[in-house]
Amino acid sequence: MNATRPATVAVIGAGTIGLGWITLFAAHGLDVVVNSRRPDAEQVVAAGLRAFATTLPGGAVDPGELSARLRFVPDVAEAVGEAGVVQENAPEDLDLKRDLYQVIGAAARPGALLLSSTSTMLPDEYGAGLDTLERVVVGHPFNPPHVVPLVEVVGGTKTDPRAIEDAVGFYRSVGKVPIVLRKPVPRFVANRLQSALLQECIHLVQEGVVTMDELDGIVTHSIGLRWATVGPFQAFHLGGGEGGLRRWLTHLGRGLERSWQDLGHPKMTENTIEYLSAEAERIYGVGNYAELAAERDLKQNAVRDAIAQAESCIKSRPNRLELDSSPNS
Amino acid sequence: MNATRPATVAVIGAGTIGLGWITLFAAHGLDVVVNSRRPDAEQVVAAGLRAFATTLPGGAVDPGELSARLRFVPDVAEAVGEAGVVQENAPEDLDLKRDLYQVIGAAARPGALLLSSTSTMLPDEYGAGLDTLERVVVGHPFNPPHVVPLVEVVGGTKTDPRAIEDAVGFYRSVGKVPIVLRKPVPRFVANRLQSALLQECIHLVQEGVVTMDELDGIVTHSIGLRWATVGPFQAFHLGGGEGGLRRWLTHLGRGLERSWQDLGHPKMTENTIEYLSAEAERIYGVGNYAELAAERDLKQNAVRDAIAQAESCIKSRPNRLELDSSPNS
Repeated sequence: MNATRPATVAVIGAGTIGLGWITLFAAHGLDVVVNSRRPDAEQVVAAGLRAFATTLPGGAVDPGELSARLRFVPDVAEAVGEAGVVQENAPEDLDLKRDLYQVIGAAARPGALLLSSTSTMLPDEYGAGLDTLERVVVGHPFNPPHVVPLVEVVGGTKTDPRAIEDAVGFYRSVGKVPIVLRKPVPRFVANRLQSALLQECIHLVQEGVVTMDELDGIVTHSIGLRWATVGPFQAFHLGGGEGGLRRWLTHLGRGLERSWQDLGHPKMTENTIEYLSAEAERIYGVGNYAELAAERDLKQNAVRDAIAQAESCIKSRPNRLELDSSPNS
Repeated sequence: MNATRPATVAVIGAGTIGLGWITLFAAHGLDVVVNSRRPDAEQVVAAGLRAFATTLPGGAVDPGELSARLRFVPDVAEAVGEAGVVQENAPEDLDLKRDLYQVIGAAARPGALLLSSTSTMLPDEYGAGLDTLERVVVGHPFNPPHVVPLVEVVGGTKTDPRAIEDAVGFYRSVGKVPIVLRKPVPRFVANRLQSALLQECIHLVQEGVVTMDELDGIVTHSIGLRWATVGPFQAFHLGGGEGGLRRWLTHLGRGLERSWQDLGHPKMTENTIEYLSAEAERIYGVGNYAELAAERDLKQNAVRDAIAQAESCIKSRPNRLELDSSPNS
């Protein structure tokens, strides 16, 4: 069995994240066994596919083509029994997930790759006691999985390094960008970074420095644009000019450390939650979720395409070396 | 005189930021008076224009066309004397900037708009004692000013609201996205957000969770892509599905607050600076600044173009209302 390119993937759970995976896997030509406890799973998934099929990277596809690749199997053991890869999306409840993995572990084929979308738990926790723990790997997507490329891959203490390799190969085969964490850290990396930024965002809005839409505009027109193209470290390395991060940190490192002292520490009181919720509803509206989410995803696809095209243009530029020597710093 | 569309702009200082402004203003057909203390200012600016002209939004232009719009005037009073707008880019040294504004204030034409690229100071500080304080406004760009659209506009306690309006109008006329801060805050908004994120980035790399390039990859393939298209608040509002930010915060707000407790607090010791600098040099290299900066900027332009095009496509989609009612949450 080839876990990197299985014939069949089982997706456990058909909420928003599960639906994204189902859409993506089907769009990449995989047969998908869908396991959901919902009695109306087929209708819910069909409606989800109709929406998500319009925002697939590479352009909209016929949702009927995707649906044709799905099979609905309400029994977990039966659902995972023939899959080379299992992508599990159960709620973040440790007891529930442990019980589920007992069933998955017993029913999975030998060598099947057992991937979890969990954003908070580790294989040692939810897979405790499993015979197949060496094939249990976190594959945490950024929402929605059919659009945003990142998957954070995290093994447990018993995970076979080949299972990590297989997970990376599998995710790459469906167009994802898997990045393996070198050690576990609570909530993994992307959500920690998001949380750090959001803390200061909430502080600045609470302080009345800017409104939510003004803050969002500041981000999309500066650091968001920047970090879509180069990450924070490369950005700071370039911020130092020819001297790089060394020059930047030598001149501004202490100031950066001081700047961390006066970042805000908002409290999530009832009042805060009410204020922020009301502001978001005032500014971004209510009842327009599907429309705004589709717009976000179409823009995200456009950005990915644009960067890929720019990278290919840059590589083929005849004057690449010429620029290298131009003194612009 | 029309400050929103002056015939002549004076740019004080021709370092990296000044050069970006010079390139942008000249590309928008303005006559630019360049004031620099450097004896080799003309050569430095010519070299800078050759590099920056290749990364202008909308495509490369002939640097000769830009140079033809410049006049070099080494005397500050003479340089600002005929300008409708002054964009000052002196070092972040309060005494130096105060002295400079005494000269600028005395020499500027009545009604001239006096803009500063400062990232740390307020008009009340560097403009103290000026007769023309009502026309002194911070116009803090995100680097490089000829590429990244954001300008943070900040008035002082004496600033005339019309000067703020004029600054906004002027920046819009040269393709920038000005956002007015409602009250001053140290280091303004974008740099505070950047600092909050970088603190956790440094922590995670120091802890060995990921390397710099892995962290950069995580950002560009998730939150960077996201925040180029929707800001953090709209992203969280959508993260709550149909229930919006209210649902998100009601379910996850307390968890978010707890997550802030275990964010890292790295120290900027000599060892930290050495480690981070060496890692950046190992991963991103040395001596390739101009090439990497040009690649960053070409990608940033491609992303802006892609988002603008996606927005125009989305507006003209016949099925926009249809999507609105599709149940995908």
